[in-house]
Amino acid sequence: MQDPVSLFERARAGDRRTLARLITLLEEGGEAAARVGAYLFPYTGQAYVIGITGPPGSGKSTLVNALARAYRERGETVGIVAVDPSSPFTGGALLGDRVRMQDVAGDPGVFIRSMATRGSLGGLARATGEVVRALDAVGFRCILVETVGAGQVEVDIARAADTVVVVQAPGLGDDIQAIKAGILEIADILVVNKADREGAAATVHILRSMLSLGGPALIRHHGQQMVVQGVAPTASGWTPPILQTVATAGKGIPELMEAIEAHRAYLERSGEGESRRRRRMAEELSQRVRERLWADVVRRVGRARLDGLVEQLARREIDPYTAVERLLAELRNG
Amino acid sequence: MQDPVSLFERARAGDRRTLARLITLLEEGGEAAARVGAYLFPYTGQAYVIGITGPPGSGKSTLVNALARAYRERGETVGIVAVDPSSPFTGGALLGDRVRMQDVAGDPGVFIRSMATRGSLGGLARATGEVVRALDAVGFRCILVETVGAGQVEVDIARAADTVVVVQAPGLGDDIQAIKAGILEIADILVVNKADREGAAATVHILRSMLSLGGPALIRHHGQQMVVQGVAPTASGWTPPILQTVATAGKGIPELMEAIEAHRAYLERSGEGESRRRRRMAEELSQRVRERLWADVVRRVGRARLDGLVEQLARREIDPYTAVERLLAELRNG
Repeated sequence: MQDPVSLFERARAGDRRTLARLITLLEEGGEAAARVGAYLFPYTGQAYVIGITGPPGSGKSTLVNALARAYRERGETVGIVAVDPSSPFTGGALLGDRVRMQDVAGDPGVFIRSMATRGSLGGLARATGEVVRALDAVGFRCILVETVGAGQVEVDIARAADTVVVVQAPGLGDDIQAIKAGILEIADILVVNKADREGAAATVHILRSMLSLGGPALIRHHGQQMVVQGVAPTASGWTPPILQTVATAGKGIPELMEAIEAHRAYLERSGEGESRRRRRMAEELSQRVRERLWADVVRRVGRARLDGLVEQLARREIDPYTAVERLLAELRNG
Repeated sequence: MQDPVSLFERARAGDRRTLARLITLLEEGGEAAARVGAYLFPYTGQAYVIGITGPPGSGKSTLVNALARAYRERGETVGIVAVDPSSPFTGGALLGDRVRMQDVAGDPGVFIRSMATRGSLGGLARATGEVVRALDAVGFRCILVETVGAGQVEVDIARAADTVVVVQAPGLGDDIQAIKAGILEIADILVVNKADREGAAATVHILRSMLSLGGPALIRHHGQQMVVQGVAPTASGWTPPILQTVATAGKGIPELMEAIEAHRAYLERSGEGESRRRRRMAEELSQRVRERLWADVVRRVGRARLDGLVEQLARREIDPYTAVERLLAELRNG
């Protein structure tokens, strides 16, 4: 096992293969990951992180590819993290990305990493954060985090970005379930990709209706008639712009970059960027402490006692609330 | 505020409106929820819980409706919990359910509840578990939990069921992302609904290929050629059957119920059902203890100290690992 700190230093010097190994180490977690995570932390905070999310078929990967190329043309180094929480196949996802991102895959100024998991609820979001931090620490100034879908995990991963771009495409929005209110809530910028297709104007219109109501809305289709049910507006100094792109042809990409720049300027001007970063930091601290405390509980009361409580719960001899109180009392007295 | 215990007793006596209020109380959490949760716990463990999940457009709700009607014809009482993790609109979801489940919505032997949230990652899965428990405790013997999509939260909710039914439909499986490996992993029974549509045989074939490889697989379409990449088989005494249904016409519903019965018998025979229930109980205990311990940390070290640490983290004066160690040391010495 190589020293994790020297692994980081070699990655920082530009060795891509070592960077890949470093990221694998961080994904695996454990003590080595913690050591290198602590070591590289002071080098972080320089990158700008852009989250890109949307349903399958919206052309996210192509858009990410086009954005990465555009940032490269500006001379910036680009890290790409592609996350599919529902797939346990890192290799497969990587293969897919390579196909869709072939324009930038050979560029030494671009690093692409796919992530997937069978792991626990919070595990993937955590690991994604660590990987983004590593890319930040080794010097990538622009990091694109691509997630698929609109589940809570995807929302959590996207929320970790400075600017969140939500991608839709014509035709996908016809289903009531395709435009997810939950994902719109976290959108800083809305993109209707594949804007050369039929229905692009209608998709823009739906999104605009939702936004003009000041918050996420519920869209229901009754034949051709569209009904928008709104909710109470939320106060914010930023109104998400709705852009149209044709990522395969590079159309609308400069405008998207401008919108990202404008959002970045807004975050700095308003102090919102700083408070977002602090909220994320507080959340991470809380999560880490919880996990350490639980490990401590297991060590102190022992597996046998925990198994005994689970046995009693299974027999309905005790309820979960009382079981917790009893365990905490034993910890206080033990 | 009504006494939560008398609320439960009235719900158990058959008062549906009180049951709805009880569930709202459980969703809200807090002390009253804990009191009634503890009180009703000994009454639980009688119901059989069936999870039904699949992508939008697969006809899940119609299938749930058909299943509920069939169980009613057998004389069983049926509770339905419809969960959409990406929608914060309980009302809207409920409206949709009422439309799709109108056959059973007026039946006093059926109780339908929709759940949605803007809440935290684990919050919805937890609340769903509480609601299922309440339905169990008031006497519903068959509980159907419907979730949409294939994100980690949906997987976690489905995993809480005794039998998990994963629904697909022809046409949805053409996209590489539509058949999610993660969701197949938790399937006890696979259903190709809308089996009267073109492409049903192909969808069955894809699912069979994935299963015959002994585990989830990655399907890629290259024109007409289908490539299946398998992974190592996982040992299990149960091979998920693949059934075809046309839920709108009630076709295949008796066969689906037979498959559910067969899986239930397998769970009992093999002891797998018991060990699943124990794993869930252990996980719940762990989660509850973690939350209590964190609340304790906040109380003891104080918000100001936590904010100070977050400030140091934001300035990169300390790394998250060291911050955790310092906090734990203060707790030990304080």
